[in-house]
Amino acid sequence: MKVGIIGGGQLARMLALAGHPLGIETIVLDPAFDACAGAVTRQLRGAYDDRNQLKALADDVDVITYEFENVPEQALQSLADLASVYPSPNALATGRDRLREKTLLSMTLGIPTAPFAAVDSREELESAAADIGLPAVLKTRTLGYDGKGQYVLRGIEDIDAAWGQLGSVPLVLEGFVEFEREVSIIAVRSRNGEIRCYPLIENVHTDGILRLSHCRPGDPQQATAEDYIGRLLDSLGYVGVIALELFQADDRLLANEMAPRVHNSGHLTIEGAETSQFENHLRAICGLPLGQTTPVGYSAMLNLIGDLPDPAAVLAVPGAHFHAYGKAAREGRKVGHITVRAENTTELERRMENVRDTLST
Amino acid sequence: MKVGIIGGGQLARMLALAGHPLGIETIVLDPAFDACAGAVTRQLRGAYDDRNQLKALADDVDVITYEFENVPEQALQSLADLASVYPSPNALATGRDRLREKTLLSMTLGIPTAPFAAVDSREELESAAADIGLPAVLKTRTLGYDGKGQYVLRGIEDIDAAWGQLGSVPLVLEGFVEFEREVSIIAVRSRNGEIRCYPLIENVHTDGILRLSHCRPGDPQQATAEDYIGRLLDSLGYVGVIALELFQADDRLLANEMAPRVHNSGHLTIEGAETSQFENHLRAICGLPLGQTTPVGYSAMLNLIGDLPDPAAVLAVPGAHFHAYGKAAREGRKVGHITVRAENTTELERRMENVRDTLST
Repeated sequence: MKVGIIGGGQLARMLALAGHPLGIETIVLDPAFDACAGAVTRQLRGAYDDRNQLKALADDVDVITYEFENVPEQALQSLADLASVYPSPNALATGRDRLREKTLLSMTLGIPTAPFAAVDSREELESAAADIGLPAVLKTRTLGYDGKGQYVLRGIEDIDAAWGQLGSVPLVLEGFVEFEREVSIIAVRSRNGEIRCYPLIENVHTDGILRLSHCRPGDPQQATAEDYIGRLLDSLGYVGVIALELFQADDRLLANEMAPRVHNSGHLTIEGAETSQFENHLRAICGLPLGQTTPVGYSAMLNLIGDLPDPAAVLAVPGAHFHAYGKAAREGRKVGHITVRAENTTELERRMENVRDTLST
Repeated sequence: MKVGIIGGGQLARMLALAGHPLGIETIVLDPAFDACAGAVTRQLRGAYDDRNQLKALADDVDVITYEFENVPEQALQSLADLASVYPSPNALATGRDRLREKTLLSMTLGIPTAPFAAVDSREELESAAADIGLPAVLKTRTLGYDGKGQYVLRGIEDIDAAWGQLGSVPLVLEGFVEFEREVSIIAVRSRNGEIRCYPLIENVHTDGILRLSHCRPGDPQQATAEDYIGRLLDSLGYVGVIALELFQADDRLLANEMAPRVHNSGHLTIEGAETSQFENHLRAICGLPLGQTTPVGYSAMLNLIGDLPDPAAVLAVPGAHFHAYGKAAREGRKVGHITVRAENTTELERRMENVRDTLST
């Protein structure tokens, strides 16, 4: 079995590493000379919309997938004519467009979300702000990630600046949620419609970037989150791993956004689940049986942003698992993560504290 | 950190896969065009005694290791002049020569073994057979593996045939052990002398090839095995992962042979231990802290010999982890393994039975 992956970053790299033992060959398409997946598997070098390379990839593989939402729509459509693409171009188009995504979640599937409205003009922004109330968050409909393409409007006086910064592209205004916590549910759906969900993951973001994830087996919100993601998966006829990020406010879960791919908060499944999200994504898109999503011990993950710490200090902590992505250091860049596993939550927190101590020195 | 590996087979492949997340680059040296490690990391193509390639390797890396005992001695010696080689050439020379190995274990370290004697002539074979008694096993001193280079002498009448088959090279005659079971202990020693041992592993060989391994946490023989391998590691000033194969007969452990490298019976540590033998070998030779060797659930491994089964059937069994080596099918060749993990031994055996059912169809 051969899988083509659009994008050669750390998600593609971890997919490739999961593929090798399964006997699944991966080939990544990425324009960068130092794409970090290229160090662990074969790379085609080319732009994501390079028709020749896309055709070469499609000719060479059995299935095509992608590691990010912003694959050019035409590129994916031309691929879909040549090869099986999972998740479907329809799922990707939904995931990359906040308005389409929120409309599906809220209107079509009845999943609670914050109030939202499309904003295509300064007038629409003003009327949406009046309808939804402030504070609210103005977001680009597409191409936003890690907190980029967002502006928090705290009062009417912010409208000028927000419109000035983002007004050149289609936007969505979303009600600001005073959440108690952020969680994500990661699930996988097979070609024949079987769904498996991982335990809920609790996340902490700083400056819009995920910093910390805790696996929460037995969480009281598990059933609700599984219900929501099940509706979403079935409505999209989805194949592969998906993530749904949610806010919890007053014991209610509000869907925030979906990612039609393996997800940063699911990296802890490499050590912290019987089958990792990467292996389950490959199993699903290749038509293999899904693997168990049951937790293995208790686990948490710390993202490494900017540069890597001394691995010797980290690896001295029992149960600490180091994941370098093979990327050059750069401010704000995700260059690796550490997953910590333990037999109980007390021990897990003690180990996490020890790992954090190594990062601050 | 960059590690050069002599040999590009499945052991090198699994070392390379363990290296990527640690940020440890690996480069393998192998003459084969389809060396299976070459699909997951960089390969230098060349014979194991190709001086130019050995020098290129030594110049490029921080540490050199190997995946098999039969690295040409001169090659390793020339490397040791250019780079750090772990485990040391002395450990390798001991591991590749049954007489030197048995002498160290039995005479120097006082570890029980079967009786043995050097055999360099037909006369010595006759007198050794008389001293040790028959049945006994005649073995080549070097280059034996997977039961190759061995002849079981059941009575005096077998001496002619045994000598005829093996008599052209230096030999050892070893007393035949009527063992109750075969076990192996896998341990790792760091550059500063710290030692960690994995739980004892119980092994089943057929036709000289390992077929089945069970991890046995809490085994009554654990302390004895740890004592023996600790003596061996310290006496060799060893750095890296080592395996010691032992027979158990009448509640006694008899050392059979050592392997100065990661070992087939330790493959189950990928899922069945907090830190795999591959990661711990890299940590040790790179001077990083050792990882925990504690078991994760209960695990067992089945070798895949000759050709691979249908992965879909295997992966349908909960807790089954598939490991294809990317090698072409060939009779008697190790082409992959399956590790099964479960929360208890009853469930483990049930799952192992289900996996075996998929192999026989």
